[in-house]
Amino acid sequence: MNEIKIFSPATVANVACGFDVLGFCLDSVGDVMVIRKTDQKGIYITKIEGFNLPYEAELNVAGVSALAMYDALKPNCGFEIEIYKNIKPGSGIGSSAASAVGSVFGMNELLGRPYNKTQLTAFSIKGEALASKCEHADNLAPAIFGGFTLVKSVNPLEILEIPTPDDLYVTIIHPQIEIKTSEARAILPKNIPLNDAITQWANFGSLIHALHTSNYELMQKSLHDAIIEPYRSQLIPYYNDVKTAVLKAGALGCGISGSGPSIFTLNQGSETANNVKDAMEKVYSKTGIEFDIHVSRINKEGIKIIDCKN
Amino acid sequence: MNEIKIFSPATVANVACGFDVLGFCLDSVGDVMVIRKTDQKGIYITKIEGFNLPYEAELNVAGVSALAMYDALKPNCGFEIEIYKNIKPGSGIGSSAASAVGSVFGMNELLGRPYNKTQLTAFSIKGEALASKCEHADNLAPAIFGGFTLVKSVNPLEILEIPTPDDLYVTIIHPQIEIKTSEARAILPKNIPLNDAITQWANFGSLIHALHTSNYELMQKSLHDAIIEPYRSQLIPYYNDVKTAVLKAGALGCGISGSGPSIFTLNQGSETANNVKDAMEKVYSKTGIEFDIHVSRINKEGIKIIDCKN
Repeated sequence: MNEIKIFSPATVANVACGFDVLGFCLDSVGDVMVIRKTDQKGIYITKIEGFNLPYEAELNVAGVSALAMYDALKPNCGFEIEIYKNIKPGSGIGSSAASAVGSVFGMNELLGRPYNKTQLTAFSIKGEALASKCEHADNLAPAIFGGFTLVKSVNPLEILEIPTPDDLYVTIIHPQIEIKTSEARAILPKNIPLNDAITQWANFGSLIHALHTSNYELMQKSLHDAIIEPYRSQLIPYYNDVKTAVLKAGALGCGISGSGPSIFTLNQGSETANNVKDAMEKVYSKTGIEFDIHVSRINKEGIKIIDCKN
Repeated sequence: MNEIKIFSPATVANVACGFDVLGFCLDSVGDVMVIRKTDQKGIYITKIEGFNLPYEAELNVAGVSALAMYDALKPNCGFEIEIYKNIKPGSGIGSSAASAVGSVFGMNELLGRPYNKTQLTAFSIKGEALASKCEHADNLAPAIFGGFTLVKSVNPLEILEIPTPDDLYVTIIHPQIEIKTSEARAILPKNIPLNDAITQWANFGSLIHALHTSNYELMQKSLHDAIIEPYRSQLIPYYNDVKTAVLKAGALGCGISGSGPSIFTLNQGSETANNVKDAMEKVYSKTGIEFDIHVSRINKEGIKIIDCKN
């Protein structure tokens, strides 16, 4: 196998009470990448479509994670990378994570899988850090493992695969506004009330229990964020209107995807997910802000091969 | 059935990363109580052995919870309560909780179970509040439900039963010193660093996942308390020495039981639990402080009937 075409999925990180540690993988949104072995050693980005991103491997998220793996393994070949980007950078659904995992996943397949999924995540962290200026894995892990993942710690890297109930659907709106990650970080408090923290870990523990037991009612009761949402939601126009409308339409929970501006909901069943889509549309179509909405199952498989060639 | 004899178990609340929400039930330590129907209406505490506690129902934890249930149900009889107290008040292993649940559990059985376990917990909260000056259920819930319980919220009362891995044993030391609950509360910070809170909920979510998957290695990695232990451990002499010794002896984790002074460990297997007992003994026998140590399985059943009479 000399060439591989992959689908690298979008992901939602934070997930309300799971700030900084929980994420899940989307099914219907993602980038396509082609990775090709070359005789010439090194990492070469040869094509980028969709968005304007740097071709220099050292300046490109996919290139940096590829180089991290390449330098560790020192294979007797090089790699060309083509990126067909569908996930808009800065949308809050793991655009840089999709690029970062795509290159290392593809190379790993072409080389006969020398690395496991946790190791691939570790290489991807290097690429992700180029985009977000800090090492975190809460979008990377669900892209690589699929389903829900809990990043227990980054140093050492410890990723837990949490069960995904079958009937869970995501509806996610991406308002076409820009939120700088630096601003989304700067707005957070350094200290928080102990009582709020207790509420948050009660909800988070309950959410993990609910995912294990497919208890949708408990998911609904647990998907609250007492700590981050009050700050970051201020950066997203009409956030509270969207939240009120989607909960009324039956969503189990609603929160900021990553650091925004995308807003995700989790829903039981596709019918509710589509009702939630309509509710989101109704709110945002009045605002004059452009937006996309996606309805997706939770992708249990994660990043996957679409095609391969010798 | 007119008379019932029950075993009301000791419990451990907080459980490291599960501060204020997680608890589990002990098997080998607990009070015995006898509850008897009487023609004369009202709640009467007729015998207390073991420790010096008030006989007036309104001033006794078991009496207050009994009165809460009695006033709600208004049965056509009264109840006598005998308390054979083995759990020392103030030891940090749910002494008041055992009294509070014992009376309502016994009355409920004698009346043909008009209430479910969550409702019994709600009545018990009234008794527990007499002792601890605030309404919480993290010792009550494991005493009533058995195993591990997560009190998601008190208002409304929401209790989750978390699976208990079979091979989990508790070793717990009770140093015979007094810590005032008010002091243990006053020492806590009102605000905590967001980063510590994130670590705590990552650990707590991981612990819930570990209990669901019987993953002892993950329990070991998750049983850490970044927030409360640094404060409260100062109130327990030789806490750090005990912790170092028990972890060396193979304990999965070690923490303050309730607000102390008892120190609990969770262990895989009885052999390790007994090694941990030896390690605790070795540290504390040099200190001149009197102590008890118990080794116990996790009690999956909770409070139970020992005997009943017509």
